[in-house]
Amino acid sequence: MISRISHVVLAAALAFGASACGQSDGQSSPSQSFVEAPAQTGFDKTLSEAKARLDAQMALPFNVPVPKDAGGGYTHETHKNNAKLIYDAGQLYALTGQEKYAQYAIDLMVAYADVYPGWGFHPEQKEQSPGRMFWQNLNESWWLVHVSQGYGAIKSVASDAQREKIETDLLRNISEFLSDGSPETFNKIHNHGTWATAAVGLTGYAIGDQDYVDQALLGLDKSGNYGFLKQLDRLFSPDGYYNEGPYYQRYALMPFVVFASAVEQNNPERKIFEYRDGILEKAIDTTIQQSYGGLFFPINDALKDKGIATTELLYGVSIAYDLSGDPGLLSIAQEQGKYVLTPESRKVAEDIARGKAKPYDFKTMRLGDGASGGEGALDILRASADPKASVVVMKNTSQGLGHGHFDKLGYIFYDNGTEIIQDYGAARFLNIEAKYGGHYLPENNSFAKQTIAHNALVVDETSHFKGNTKTGNNFHPTAGVFADEADLQISSAQIDTAYEGVNLIRMMAIIHDDALPKPIVIDLMRADASGVRQYDLPVYFSGQLIETNFKLAADPVSRKPLGYENGYQHLWDVARAKPVEGLSQVTWLNDRRFYTVSSAVPNNSEIIFVEVGANDPNFNLRRQQAFILRAAQDGGVSYASVIEPHGEYNPTVEFTLNSHSQVKSLEAFNDGQQDYVRVELKSGQIIGLATSQNMDAQKTHTINVDGQSVTWTGPYTLFHSDAHKTGKK
Amino acid sequence: MISRISHVVLAAALAFGASACGQSDGQSSPSQSFVEAPAQTGFDKTLSEAKARLDAQMALPFNVPVPKDAGGGYTHETHKNNAKLIYDAGQLYALTGQEKYAQYAIDLMVAYADVYPGWGFHPEQKEQSPGRMFWQNLNESWWLVHVSQGYGAIKSVASDAQREKIETDLLRNISEFLSDGSPETFNKIHNHGTWATAAVGLTGYAIGDQDYVDQALLGLDKSGNYGFLKQLDRLFSPDGYYNEGPYYQRYALMPFVVFASAVEQNNPERKIFEYRDGILEKAIDTTIQQSYGGLFFPINDALKDKGIATTELLYGVSIAYDLSGDPGLLSIAQEQGKYVLTPESRKVAEDIARGKAKPYDFKTMRLGDGASGGEGALDILRASADPKASVVVMKNTSQGLGHGHFDKLGYIFYDNGTEIIQDYGAARFLNIEAKYGGHYLPENNSFAKQTIAHNALVVDETSHFKGNTKTGNNFHPTAGVFADEADLQISSAQIDTAYEGVNLIRMMAIIHDDALPKPIVIDLMRADASGVRQYDLPVYFSGQLIETNFKLAADPVSRKPLGYENGYQHLWDVARAKPVEGLSQVTWLNDRRFYTVSSAVPNNSEIIFVEVGANDPNFNLRRQQAFILRAAQDGGVSYASVIEPHGEYNPTVEFTLNSHSQVKSLEAFNDGQQDYVRVELKSGQIIGLATSQNMDAQKTHTINVDGQSVTWTGPYTLFHSDAHKTGKK
Repeated sequence: MISRISHVVLAAALAFGASACGQSDGQSSPSQSFVEAPAQTGFDKTLSEAKARLDAQMALPFNVPVPKDAGGGYTHETHKNNAKLIYDAGQLYALTGQEKYAQYAIDLMVAYADVYPGWGFHPEQKEQSPGRMFWQNLNESWWLVHVSQGYGAIKSVASDAQREKIETDLLRNISEFLSDGSPETFNKIHNHGTWATAAVGLTGYAIGDQDYVDQALLGLDKSGNYGFLKQLDRLFSPDGYYNEGPYYQRYALMPFVVFASAVEQNNPERKIFEYRDGILEKAIDTTIQQSYGGLFFPINDALKDKGIATTELLYGVSIAYDLSGDPGLLSIAQEQGKYVLTPESRKVAEDIARGKAKPYDFKTMRLGDGASGGEGALDILRASADPKASVVVMKNTSQGLGHGHFDKLGYIFYDNGTEIIQDYGAARFLNIEAKYGGHYLPENNSFAKQTIAHNALVVDETSHFKGNTKTGNNFHPTAGVFADEADLQISSAQIDTAYEGVNLIRMMAIIHDDALPKPIVIDLMRADASGVRQYDLPVYFSGQLIETNFKLAADPVSRKPLGYENGYQHLWDVARAKPVEGLSQVTWLNDRRFYTVSSAVPNNSEIIFVEVGANDPNFNLRRQQAFILRAAQDGGVSYASVIEPHGEYNPTVEFTLNSHSQVKSLEAFNDGQQDYVRVELKSGQIIGLATSQNMDAQKTHTINVDGQSVTWTGPYTLFHSDAHKTGKK
Repeated sequence: MISRISHVVLAAALAFGASACGQSDGQSSPSQSFVEAPAQTGFDKTLSEAKARLDAQMALPFNVPVPKDAGGGYTHETHKNNAKLIYDAGQLYALTGQEKYAQYAIDLMVAYADVYPGWGFHPEQKEQSPGRMFWQNLNESWWLVHVSQGYGAIKSVASDAQREKIETDLLRNISEFLSDGSPETFNKIHNHGTWATAAVGLTGYAIGDQDYVDQALLGLDKSGNYGFLKQLDRLFSPDGYYNEGPYYQRYALMPFVVFASAVEQNNPERKIFEYRDGILEKAIDTTIQQSYGGLFFPINDALKDKGIATTELLYGVSIAYDLSGDPGLLSIAQEQGKYVLTPESRKVAEDIARGKAKPYDFKTMRLGDGASGGEGALDILRASADPKASVVVMKNTSQGLGHGHFDKLGYIFYDNGTEIIQDYGAARFLNIEAKYGGHYLPENNSFAKQTIAHNALVVDETSHFKGNTKTGNNFHPTAGVFADEADLQISSAQIDTAYEGVNLIRMMAIIHDDALPKPIVIDLMRADASGVRQYDLPVYFSGQLIETNFKLAADPVSRKPLGYENGYQHLWDVARAKPVEGLSQVTWLNDRRFYTVSSAVPNNSEIIFVEVGANDPNFNLRRQQAFILRAAQDGGVSYASVIEPHGEYNPTVEFTLNSHSQVKSLEAFNDGQQDYVRVELKSGQIIGLATSQNMDAQKTHTINVDGQSVTWTGPYTLFHSDAHKTGKK
């Protein structure tokens, strides 16, 4: 059997300079394959940089230290670097045909083969799933994923003795440690298991051992109850959503797409990319869809500066383009601006240089969560396909396991290319030793995961599921209405398990109406409950506070934390206010645009302005700010808000336009299962949004709105203003 | 006499499509003038947008409201807009030859001529220099600068009756109000005077009245003791520095360059651009030099988002390019990315499209302040011409009049394209009504101007000159050493009038040494005084605190302001610490780079971490942070610091390099007039910088450094490490 990678070697060595050998180019016309490759592409730059880097490295002696340090330490980083060198050397040989690269990879692998069999468990071994070269075998899998591909690429150059040595003492030795030697990881339906099966499976193809491949695909016992295919069944929802969220999705994606590529090359009869209705392409696409301004939605434990330019997505996007030929992926690759040493990546670079890129089709979409897609959903509402248009991300998913946050029905609002109402993400400085060794900080649990750290409703100053992940994992919201129309993007969900005796219901919609210069968002957050309880709804606004429609009372010379636990201890209580006649309006400036959140709140409400940073003696938290709508009420609560981007602040040309909100009044009416939100603009125009928890499209609803009866059919109806010309009403 | 603007009309109308008619193209080869203009330039886009805007406007009736509102109000903005329409219509006629634009400008001016003579003082008139159309006559000058140019451009199309009407009832009426009617402004050596003289002078050229021109150039009495030429003599230093700083320099520049261009066209014998050794070109150049990352150094009252893309500099850069042909200006224009409707701006766009742009020559430079250049200086130290290289801006200038801040010997540090140790700038939200009507906020005086708001030394918690602008205007620092060498950029200054009985001396230098991966900055701040006084030296660091070499003691559950007045009341006292053995090290992360400030401090020092925002009930202040070196000492103080950019935090590829400072120890030795700063790196390498207040280049100095005697000649000498190969030592 010819491994996929050897195949690439041959093809690339013979056809270097011509178009890449991707198997699917169905969408381009036949003549296009004869178009000459452009003179200099981004890929060429990547290639010459890789050559320079490897040439410099090849002048130095090998460095294969005895395992000693934990993650981030010297031996850890050295072994990681060696794997990259072997991988790059293999790819460079494949791409250039220069044997010196193959020889370097062979010699470095032989050096490892000399010592690896003698290594027992790592001295800093983690309790679960320890490694030998690294402290955890996840890193060992990562290492083998790279080295096995490097080996496949240079195998034909190695002598029989070298092959024997490398395969026996290194590749098989590690593979067996990762498979039979670590069944608890290998058979786990979890991304650590995917790394392990991909590593062993890629090794199987590289050394020509079908047994490895079968174990990788079907589990140690080849029953199909475990292994790569089962992981494909279970780790993604049918819509391609990964349970832990996009930050971990992009990490999990890497072994999936790399191993699947090898399966496609070597066992095309498996049609792996058609498996489960093309789940892998969907997963790559949803990873991109879950981004704004190049950065992933930072839900759950996520570093906020992580985005589509990560190495994992360089592989993902180029492989997806190879499969689909979708020119929208080229604009994503342009934004990535970087390439990897694969034929697919070269093809991407060449097609960009040929001017084939089209805008990527960012869509309003519901991504069902859970293996069957029925465990809540991540709902993405986009005002348009413009990458800078308003976006609402509703976190109506399930808990997301250990990295999940307690933010049921929370949301993020983006506009103008950036995060406007934000999520904190994770409290972590990855790999920065001075910050708790680069691990998740204690404040990740004490603040970032807590409900009050999110744009989500907190009842009685406690977090959802009392902050217990295990409890959280047992429940999920029920997704409600979802629609994407020309004048309306709408989503809702509810959950009655986050708090005992409380049903949380949230509806959010982007509204387009000719009375509005820009689309607005309507947010209706309701809690149905009995007894007096306190309801806190934070809005983590990003920017400079400009005005409020109420008088702020700040203690200018002293600050105290807002509370004692559940994240409240990390918030400074900065200022308080009473809203005027049940209407709260807060306007801030972000970059050059104004934003106002107008909220209809109970008359006894309080608005509390807070800043993150109390109980933070080590300066671990970022200084973000929020205002919190607070009401203590008997019988539940309703907060109806309009999020309104408006105006322009232009300090360059010195003008300011429309710095004030256009919202004059806002009222929410509720009648059991039915809601009606009425927005009155200063122009006198009125917009209404009627919704029902009843999903029956035929059912007619009537609600009393200020003495007038409003009737509609189906789960939602937008009542346009008189100024609207193109609406359906 | 043919006015400059009519000349342009003719030239443009006849030669539209060909190269612009700039008078100086000395640096391009003859053949280049025959190079065809590129198909589509940034200027063409500006032109078509202006046409679309004007075409839309021309469909609407005129709107010439009776003056009523103050700055920012409706009538104010409407009159401003009409001036722009008249100007643009004139330029469009000149550029396209389409008479409809000329006719529109004529009709709109006639509409003004109908009503202007009947307008008395504006109902909201400012006490000083009131206007008629606007509340202050500065706006009236601005209006006439635009309208007179518009008139000049379309004059030939107007009928005799229209000319008579417009000239008599509008242009002469305003001009006489601005000149004979407002002598206190017209004859003032101040930028308001420049706007007035430019307005009247441009009108003189447009209507062919040399008397107006002479008054503009030489003052009302034509003595030369006042007027435009005297303003050129007095408002800029010989180096082209404007006393109030770059934020006001770019505003003042506009009438200077526009009127000078007209003088050059109409009275070339005046050689206005050669006047005072080419002061205007210098002023344009220094405005650009006083920027980083496209934004002006925010010294004094400055909006921090103001930069080279302002309209004023679109005129300035294109006129400077027309004069000098310096291709470096084209890269500035590229960064501006916008154009104005002038032949010079078109030429810039075309030459950019021809690929003529070269990197702009950002330089280390001393800009002497004051009419004779001897009143202190703004010193700009640049590690290299790379726009992203480290830059130190030393504020050793005089007070800068009413917009000046009390920040003698303060500094700003830039690196990696952004402000790393920052200046607050002004407390103001320009034109945002909700923020104190868009005026300077009360916090501008109570905080932003105060010494503690800057990276400047505060003695006894009071500001320089006791915060009195009048006192400040009487004094200035004495500039000391200044040099720009391959391995060293150095500057120093002193001032003994900011505090009674205290001589402040500061030396800053950028050091290049092969033992350092990147250049570092040495900052030696000394105060010579007798008696016990308290010395506070803030460092307004921008980024996330990563580590300190001392234990921070924060009160996690309460905050109090640091003081009661002089700006201290706006700082929260966040955490305090005692430095370890006289060495304080603070490391933070900005974007993807680490920065450490290591400081040798007196043993009894305290480090205080502060955040801006106390006593700020209206959320008017930005939440910036600083640490303050504090020592109470008898006999003065010395703080020697190293500012060290280092390492890389890469969350995309997940690695972190060199997050720790390389500075092991730091000591400062002082011996009367002589200083020696010794930096010991963790590698064992030692770098020394010796300085003297004695500027004699021949004088030999000796200082005792830890028992060893160090000798050098002249005001400064850098002692390189042993690792340095290319240094002069």
